[in-house]
Amino acid sequence: MEFDLIITNGVVVTASGTVQPPNSDIAVKDGVIMNIGRNLVAFAGPNTKVIDAEGAHVTPGGVDTHVHLSQGAGGITMDGFDTGTRSAICGGTTTVVCFAAQEKWDEDVLEVVANYHAKAKSQGGTYSDYGFHLILTNPSPAVLDEQLPKLRKEEGISSVKLYMSYDNRQLNDAQIMSVLQRTRALGMTTMIHAENWDMIKFIIKQLEERQQTDPYFHAVSRPPLVENEAAYRAIAIAELMDTPILLVHISTRSSRDHVRAAQTRMLPIHAETCPQYLYLLSDVLKKPDFEGAKYVCSPPVRDDPDDIDALWEGIANGTFTTLSSDHCPSCWDHPQGKKLGLDEKTNIARFSVIPNGLPGVETRLPLGYQGVTDGKISVEKFVEVACTNPSKLYGLDTKGILAPGYDADVVIWYPKDTVQVSIANDNLHHRVDYTPYEGYRLGNWPRYTILRGKIVWTRENGGLVGDQGYGKFIKRAGNMLRQPRDKWVNEWRPFVEEK
Amino acid sequence: MEFDLIITNGVVVTASGTVQPPNSDIAVKDGVIMNIGRNLVAFAGPNTKVIDAEGAHVTPGGVDTHVHLSQGAGGITMDGFDTGTRSAICGGTTTVVCFAAQEKWDEDVLEVVANYHAKAKSQGGTYSDYGFHLILTNPSPAVLDEQLPKLRKEEGISSVKLYMSYDNRQLNDAQIMSVLQRTRALGMTTMIHAENWDMIKFIIKQLEERQQTDPYFHAVSRPPLVENEAAYRAIAIAELMDTPILLVHISTRSSRDHVRAAQTRMLPIHAETCPQYLYLLSDVLKKPDFEGAKYVCSPPVRDDPDDIDALWEGIANGTFTTLSSDHCPSCWDHPQGKKLGLDEKTNIARFSVIPNGLPGVETRLPLGYQGVTDGKISVEKFVEVACTNPSKLYGLDTKGILAPGYDADVVIWYPKDTVQVSIANDNLHHRVDYTPYEGYRLGNWPRYTILRGKIVWTRENGGLVGDQGYGKFIKRAGNMLRQPRDKWVNEWRPFVEEK
Amino acid sequence: MEFDLIITNGVVVTASGTVQPPNSDIAVKDGVIMNIGRNLVAFAGPNTKVIDAEGAHVTPGGVDTHVHLSQGAGGITMDGFDTGTRSAICGGTTTVVCFAAQEKWDEDVLEVVANYHAKAKSQGGTYSDYGFHLILTNPSPAVLDEQLPKLRKEEGISSVKLYMSYDNRQLNDAQIMSVLQRTRALGMTTMIHAENWDMIKFIIKQLEERQQTDPYFHAVSRPPLVENEAAYRAIAIAELMDTPILLVHISTRSSRDHVRAAQTRMLPIHAETCPQYLYLLSDVLKKPDFEGAKYVCSPPVRDDPDDIDALWEGIANGTFTTLSSDHCPSCWDHPQGKKLGLDEKTNIARFSVIPNGLPGVETRLPLGYQGVTDGKISVEKFVEVACTNPSKLYGLDTKGILAPGYDADVVIWYPKDTVQVSIANDNLHHRVDYTPYEGYRLGNWPRYTILRGKIVWTRENGGLVGDQGYGKFIKRAGNMLRQPRDKWVNEWRPFVEEK
Amino acid sequence: MEFDLIITNGVVVTASGTVQPPNSDIAVKDGVIMNIGRNLVAFAGPNTKVIDAEGAHVTPGGVDTHVHLSQGAGGITMDGFDTGTRSAICGGTTTVVCFAAQEKWDEDVLEVVANYHAKAKSQGGTYSDYGFHLILTNPSPAVLDEQLPKLRKEEGISSVKLYMSYDNRQLNDAQIMSVLQRTRALGMTTMIHAENWDMIKFIIKQLEERQQTDPYFHAVSRPPLVENEAAYRAIAIAELMDTPILLVHISTRSSRDHVRAAQTRMLPIHAETCPQYLYLLSDVLKKPDFEGAKYVCSPPVRDDPDDIDALWEGIANGTFTTLSSDHCPSCWDHPQGKKLGLDEKTNIARFSVIPNGLPGVETRLPLGYQGVTDGKISVEKFVEVACTNPSKLYGLDTKGILAPGYDADVVIWYPKDTVQVSIANDNLHHRVDYTPYEGYRLGNWPRYTILRGKIVWTRENGGLVGDQGYGKFIKRAGNMLRQPRDKWVNEWRPFVEEK
Repeated sequence: MEFDLIITNGVVVTASGTVQPPNSDIAVKDGVIMNIGRNLVAFAGPNTKVIDAEGAHVTPGGVDTHVHLSQGAGGITMDGFDTGTRSAICGGTTTVVCFAAQEKWDEDVLEVVANYHAKAKSQGGTYSDYGFHLILTNPSPAVLDEQLPKLRKEEGISSVKLYMSYDNRQLNDAQIMSVLQRTRALGMTTMIHAENWDMIKFIIKQLEERQQTDPYFHAVSRPPLVENEAAYRAIAIAELMDTPILLVHISTRSSRDHVRAAQTRMLPIHAETCPQYLYLLSDVLKKPDFEGAKYVCSPPVRDDPDDIDALWEGIANGTFTTLSSDHCPSCWDHPQGKKLGLDEKTNIARFSVIPNGLPGVETRLPLGYQGVTDGKISVEKFVEVACTNPSKLYGLDTKGILAPGYDADVVIWYPKDTVQVSIANDNLHHRVDYTPYEGYRLGNWPRYTILRGKIVWTRENGGLVGDQGYGKFIKRAGNMLRQPRDKWVNEWRPFVEEK
Repeated sequence: MEFDLIITNGVVVTASGTVQPPNSDIAVKDGVIMNIGRNLVAFAGPNTKVIDAEGAHVTPGGVDTHVHLSQGAGGITMDGFDTGTRSAICGGTTTVVCFAAQEKWDEDVLEVVANYHAKAKSQGGTYSDYGFHLILTNPSPAVLDEQLPKLRKEEGISSVKLYMSYDNRQLNDAQIMSVLQRTRALGMTTMIHAENWDMIKFIIKQLEERQQTDPYFHAVSRPPLVENEAAYRAIAIAELMDTPILLVHISTRSSRDHVRAAQTRMLPIHAETCPQYLYLLSDVLKKPDFEGAKYVCSPPVRDDPDDIDALWEGIANGTFTTLSSDHCPSCWDHPQGKKLGLDEKTNIARFSVIPNGLPGVETRLPLGYQGVTDGKISVEKFVEVACTNPSKLYGLDTKGILAPGYDADVVIWYPKDTVQVSIANDNLHHRVDYTPYEGYRLGNWPRYTILRGKIVWTRENGGLVGDQGYGKFIKRAGNMLRQPRDKWVNEWRPFVEEK
Repeated sequence: MEFDLIITNGVVVTASGTVQPPNSDIAVKDGVIMNIGRNLVAFAGPNTKVIDAEGAHVTPGGVDTHVHLSQGAGGITMDGFDTGTRSAICGGTTTVVCFAAQEKWDEDVLEVVANYHAKAKSQGGTYSDYGFHLILTNPSPAVLDEQLPKLRKEEGISSVKLYMSYDNRQLNDAQIMSVLQRTRALGMTTMIHAENWDMIKFIIKQLEERQQTDPYFHAVSRPPLVENEAAYRAIAIAELMDTPILLVHISTRSSRDHVRAAQTRMLPIHAETCPQYLYLLSDVLKKPDFEGAKYVCSPPVRDDPDDIDALWEGIANGTFTTLSSDHCPSCWDHPQGKKLGLDEKTNIARFSVIPNGLPGVETRLPLGYQGVTDGKISVEKFVEVACTNPSKLYGLDTKGILAPGYDADVVIWYPKDTVQVSIANDNLHHRVDYTPYEGYRLGNWPRYTILRGKIVWTRENGGLVGDQGYGKFIKRAGNMLRQPRDKWVNEWRPFVEEK
Repeated sequence: MEFDLIITNGVVVTASGTVQPPNSDIAVKDGVIMNIGRNLVAFAGPNTKVIDAEGAHVTPGGVDTHVHLSQGAGGITMDGFDTGTRSAICGGTTTVVCFAAQEKWDEDVLEVVANYHAKAKSQGGTYSDYGFHLILTNPSPAVLDEQLPKLRKEEGISSVKLYMSYDNRQLNDAQIMSVLQRTRALGMTTMIHAENWDMIKFIIKQLEERQQTDPYFHAVSRPPLVENEAAYRAIAIAELMDTPILLVHISTRSSRDHVRAAQTRMLPIHAETCPQYLYLLSDVLKKPDFEGAKYVCSPPVRDDPDDIDALWEGIANGTFTTLSSDHCPSCWDHPQGKKLGLDEKTNIARFSVIPNGLPGVETRLPLGYQGVTDGKISVEKFVEVACTNPSKLYGLDTKGILAPGYDADVVIWYPKDTVQVSIANDNLHHRVDYTPYEGYRLGNWPRYTILRGKIVWTRENGGLVGDQGYGKFIKRAGNMLRQPRDKWVNEWRPFVEEK
């Protein structure tokens, strides 16, 4: 057997340790890792591509499980499956899990997914591999009892996302319970956006009455308590239902502490955080000329550096299962007003109508790796939260681990301290006209991105080398991390018969 | 000045200490305590009534701030202002605060209160002094901005009660915030019934589908988490609004711990517990022949003796501000079925339709005092939670303390260990056909109850001596305990201009 | 009966509430409060002194249970029983509990106490009432089994103090246990100075090797962890022995939290804090010219304003039982060098030899009352920690409460906002040449101090009016607050037969 | 290159995931894993041994880092390096780290280690690989500043063990600090036996006075608080010194919680637990005829099943770094009395003289694996605590992981549910006359144990096949897990210059 690709001389990183040269050659055939070991390079044949990692870290390709592409009305989500996945691979991410959103309350979710498949196809396919989470806004019996089992079985979609906020998305507690009852039976993971919408609306209304509508007031309208309360409630619901959940984009120490306490008790609670909460503070929202609008996301970036410390600490101590981008690509210079929130004729600002979310699918992995460079987390932990755990949690059973039998999705970094990168939007590959990290200096960036054995990004030789359309849709297995515990407080059991 | 009444030779108890004979004579004139001190009995005139307390504890008259009288449709709330207040004074309670409930969603709350005044009058008036909390089910702008300030000013009603549960009562988080915004401005205390109604409904629906409808399943339908979550949420809302609340009928260690943590931070959070949670466990709900229905209250009595320990400990350590009865007088032997939940023809049981709540206004004070006898709490703490704190929290500024200038509302107990009482419903004075404490043995019972200087109950000489109608409606001042802190997390302030 | 003194028109404050004029007249005869009530002034006779409180707060006389007088070698403890108690009454404190210290390891503690009695007598007696805690440094069987019971019975000394630090004082854990076993049997309270001495010595040794010997390094040598660990250990020992203790001079949030957690579980744990920890931060230790030495106390004043917040909060939320001065009167300008720590010839500084402790018996009560003025604590809470609780904890059963039968020890303050005081050492009455609060502005100061019915301080008319020698030694009862719980973890019981 | 050994068809387990057949062939040459991957079996040569794992779990060889061999006076530690390591490999453990104990207070620790090397040699060498922890009882400057650096450098001994208890071992807090200061500089890990010895001695003395000397009173003499306090203190010391420690044999929920809280803050705190605390409760100590003595270890096995739950949960949630045996091989039927604690002539029992500790080096790994069978922990977690983490923590940098370049130390288990084992001491290979697990039924046992590529145990074909003496002494690297944080509370730094 002649290998297609051999990566030699790298420090291969897994979530539980590293393999050093000369023991760390990786041999690839047909897109899959065949062997890892010593002197595999000796087996290179004439058609074998050999990459010398030069002693650098070799990690799994990034897995970003929180990416918004081609959602919503035209002009808000700028990136489609084309530019979004292109941006991903240029930043080392080989798999994204995007959202197929049930926008209309009565939509058949099988149709919803079909539509997103059609979008991806019509845009020319993807650069990276991809999957869909289903956003559920109407958990009707038809959806839960008939469509969802089919989606799980036929499409390999093993995760849903729920919102506790936004008028057009919000599910109440009972609806969340009904979804969890079904996802429990189907072995699916449920993502929850946890903010107390009643609190937010109440505050926004008052701020608007007081003409406090500049972007900074977005943060004022969502104090940490708003997330804290909703996170606690979501955990309580998950405990009652004995069902695994992931709390998306946790941004504060207090909600981190709720997650930690739940995990101490082995409740099946997972949490995600994002680079924006690890690097940005709310003072950026005060930039003049409405530029603060560039940093509007929900939850908002926080006031207190202690929250940043708590989040890095939470990655290091194992509280956070995943590090995702929450890539939300809307443009700053929009025909309908700066970030859609500033009426440029009247000069009236309204933070409350700015699309929530920041672009970041390309910068996520390098910003996460920067935590290694800065001594905040180990490189094993980086791989765990950015590659391995997202794969396990969402059933990407061929992704996220450098081991025989797994897809040869690989990032090769630069040997330590040989590269300095200054982030500039001009060098990024999304369709958004800014990055919140303009000018940030990083100590590393992916030198090669490899997807299923094929080099799709090489920073030194022209950058993007992948063909659009090489990316594949991935049918996923179930959650491979914490399972229901089958522990109860009383005689009621949240069972549902699986159909 | 000739005193009307002198109580001599008692151990006078206040929340912060005792005064021993011979320094503890209490002299009363015109219903008010004039003096406390040594040898006041020497000033007794020919018309002065002198009571020898014989070395027993002399405490303030009980103040029960959670009593349901004459509410709802006929036949469910059996006690009116007549029998309810009669029962109160026979158990040593001289003041009750009942509820004026906005039953219809659009009711003018001034009319609501007027109707309850009319009920009290039409029933012949009361035996004890009394006041009203307003139950708010529709916090419309008209209610909050116009009616509530009037109610506070003209009627001296300085407390409202909100429900997080029950379809016909439930307020959502935003509604609770709008109420707190107004009660904050008006210096009113807000009572909150904290149970997660979505969770309860979800479980009840499933239990009923599974034919699990015996009374015991009432407890199954409301596991501790249901209270725990709602208590945490209510505290979060109160913190955000910086507004004093009291969580009614806390029944578990976990929600007690939330309250304690909030109090450690000096948030203006109060909590109440009730004798049923201090004495009963859920095995009583399994009594045969549907007799478990006698013990259905919400939250339910709990499964775990550890919760009972935690509640006694919570009184002793200061977590609980008040000990109330939550007197809910519905009859067991009801024409429409046993406790309205057992169709005696078909023998079909449905716990979900049983009226929630137990009778207890008469037994509350003796059951609380039993904690002193049993060494669980000090007699000062007993006075604090059963008399002093309820008065301070709800602005009963002439009640709950034995000191000059305060109303001469007094209970004289038996000298230690000279009386043994076996509770029997035949000896109680409410209009309910059972007591949940039938056969309980107590070490003491009020020997005398004195209301504004007048003996209204003397256990030895014929019992009830009070005249119906002597009880007065009390206009109340504002909350005299923890106030808003004026501490904020950001630039938003929950102010509302007071009109 | 003609009263000796009547105080009229004041707001009488107890730990659980206030009595307002006109109901609040206090009538005194033979040094004892006879009556409190309405219009007692009408009973004034020709020999009755009447004081019009003019609507001001009338509180119990201060009770300061942590005062060092006439201890140690000459020249370190400047104040004796003469100036120390003079200073006390000029600041509103009518009772001090000082220390009789077993200095030599084998001293008979009955002789120790006899010696301190002799000191007080030889100095002309005291201005305030006073008692002794016994400092135990050698808990031998003779001391514990023979002398201590006698001391308790014959001298009414119901408290001992132990040190976990200082080479000449330190008891190890086993010794502490042997003391607690005996004090438990005798109903005595045990005060514990909790700092980990091994940690301190280790750090001091290294600092000295590095020539880091300026006063500021005193704080460096005792980081919060040093107190935190020892407090936790002391609580563990007290739990194991089921014996009441008071942790003296708690200065940090972390040890406060240990106390709070213990109290939540109803362990018999008490804690004290002092004004220096409520007002000073460690930057004062950096004052030039060795002036930082004036602020050297142990535990040190802390670096973090958050600790100050935590201590005020700890008073307000009930964690602290007492507020004491820890008055340690050593002079700044000492013949052997500034504060004994600066060799003025060589200009060599050594923080480690500076006598630990600050003067403060006169300023404690006004600084505590300032918390009321500043809205940090209620006036009831002020009375509780500064007067009532110290009396109850240490068995001063005629002190600390304004109620009939109690000693007429009274402070009358100024009506709100009518006085501004700037603290100046020139105006204080101790024998120390500085105050750490020089120039502090206060909103009030005792207008009158009354000891057993006799005016001993009147700020307006010449100040000190008391005669030295009027102060009496007080035989004390046992602890009247939390008692042993008689709860055990296993079959061992920390009993000792009482002799 | 012809491989020496190929293991095919197994499920290869690492701490972060599994590799499934057919991707999981392991190829070994010269005792080292060369490759892992697909179809390596095709490369088998005539001299290649091939083992078909038949789909079973293939894990790293067990690493037991808490084993007492050849310590102390004759007859107490029955197992030497011969039988101890034989027992290890028969239970799947390929590396043990034993203790070289500084028994005499002034011993040169280089000589101590030399003596232990000599013991191993004189006993014929070992079956498993092995290393030494140094037990330090006299941390003199000579030991710390001169001998320890040499031991680290020349002997590759990178861990020391300290005792907070036992008269002949106990270090006080200052001594512990002086050790940590040095181990910090040397990158060594410090193990701490945390029990409060003063508490224990105090209780034992009283129990003996009361003639409560049966084995059960061993548990009475060491209530959970004894461990809890010492664990908290050790953590505080480690925080102050910013130095990694491992708390050995944690046995209760309360001390587990201290560890968890420290880890949440990313303090470098590790903890170990042992099978005896996961399987045994203190009722075994009550077995008649002094048989309870068989279960005497310190800390004692606990009273409360909740502690067992907490320990399993603590493994699952990541609190415990390692699962060790604490193998202490003393015999039950001893010439000087049953377990040395029962004088058989006088029939006088004394729990306090029974050697503390249980045999268990052979049963540790199967009892740990049983947690996987019982669904309490994942197989990855089992590998992490029993193999990978002990290797990383103690610098066994070629052990504990199945990856190329690592030693081919392997355990092959039975395919699920194909074997049932009943533990019987007759089948074990230590030199002790009992096992505390006699009759316990297990679902699995190592089918093969492989040490550096050589089969040393094969359960089916005669069992032990290893030659004594094949085991090697392992020079170790430093701690590869949590490092000092270089975070300080003040200006003092616990540095020591490394020599």
